[in-house]
Amino acid sequence: MSKTARSDHPIHTLLADRYSPYAFADRDVRREDLASLFEAARWAASSYNEQPWRFIVADRREAEAFATLLSCLVEGNQAWAQRVPVLALGLVRTAFDRNGKPNRAAEHDLGLATAQLTLEATARGLSVHPMIGIQPERIRELYGVPDDATPLTGLAIGYAAEPSALPDGLRAREEAPRRRRPLHELVFGSRWGIRADLDGSY
Amino acid sequence: MSKTARSDHPIHTLLADRYSPYAFADRDVRREDLASLFEAARWAASSYNEQPWRFIVADRREAEAFATLLSCLVEGNQAWAQRVPVLALGLVRTAFDRNGKPNRAAEHDLGLATAQLTLEATARGLSVHPMIGIQPERIRELYGVPDDATPLTGLAIGYAAEPSALPDGLRAREEAPRRRRPLHELVFGSRWGIRADLDGSY
Repeated sequence: MSKTARSDHPIHTLLADRYSPYAFADRDVRREDLASLFEAARWAASSYNEQPWRFIVADRREAEAFATLLSCLVEGNQAWAQRVPVLALGLVRTAFDRNGKPNRAAEHDLGLATAQLTLEATARGLSVHPMIGIQPERIRELYGVPDDATPLTGLAIGYAAEPSALPDGLRAREEAPRRRRPLHELVFGSRWGIRADLDGSY
Repeated sequence: MSKTARSDHPIHTLLADRYSPYAFADRDVRREDLASLFEAARWAASSYNEQPWRFIVADRREAEAFATLLSCLVEGNQAWAQRVPVLALGLVRTAFDRNGKPNRAAEHDLGLATAQLTLEATARGLSVHPMIGIQPERIRELYGVPDDATPLTGLAIGYAAEPSALPDGLRAREEAPRRRRPLHELVFGSRWGIRADLDGSY
């Protein structure tokens, strides 16, 4: 089953091939691959080079640590994420280190870093499924997250598998074609809602 | 001058080569390349596949539209961004289309989309410089942005140039080595601040 994006304009294969699976193979992630994933996140752009992203990671080969992290997802995500080899949380520091002022870009910049992590994963044959369904207060308590940081995302990391083993509801989602809004609903020109002329030429 | 990241663990060349230049060449961006950049953003992951990202774009070959968009950046950014061939704004819809509830992931997901746009740019020899320094209220007024959307970022898009033509302050920033916090300050294991064991093996 191919999940490659059917794009209207050509895009790089790493971007077209990336998707967020629910079905993961029973195969561990090499530690050196995992290090490169976080290294890729590390080199993302950020406002004033603040690098507001932080991650907490657990490998299922450390059963207790993995169970703790799994318990920080919402129940709906725990159902499928319990079979993932590596779980992580994405957090942000909400103020700038240098002056303590609020960092308006922090969550956006975690997104930049997470996309870089995900593309590094794709290049290594791995997949990442980002989640917003986490339990921030539980994370704060279990991991001692300070007041100036906020848990925002969960990440499932591993090798995608065929969806045949998934429960019916998730299998249907996994097997459905990938859909996106048309580009003209996303990119505007002179005014909000007025499409940009991306098909014209000079 | 190479700006390639000196990474501690190997990362994909598209990620290592990406950086945010201030100096851009006097060279236009082909319309079909621009379409592929936004197409790359379009295929990013998002919470509930909401695709909360929106973009407004202006090419300097349309002088009036470009001047309008340039005027939406803060002054410090206008100084260098006036010489960029394409400018864009990144905005988010703050509520879910399907139920009107707040989308906690919207800004994060704009980051995912922007990183995909940036990697597509890198693959095409282009560079992207994201900015948080914009004038949101001016953008809202000039472009008719609705209440359920928020302007968050600016994007300079073009071909990076040698920094020799930059004013001294910017040239020094551009020529400085790229720095990042060490990985152990970013990726934690059992507790906030306690490094994850990414160098170990099983």
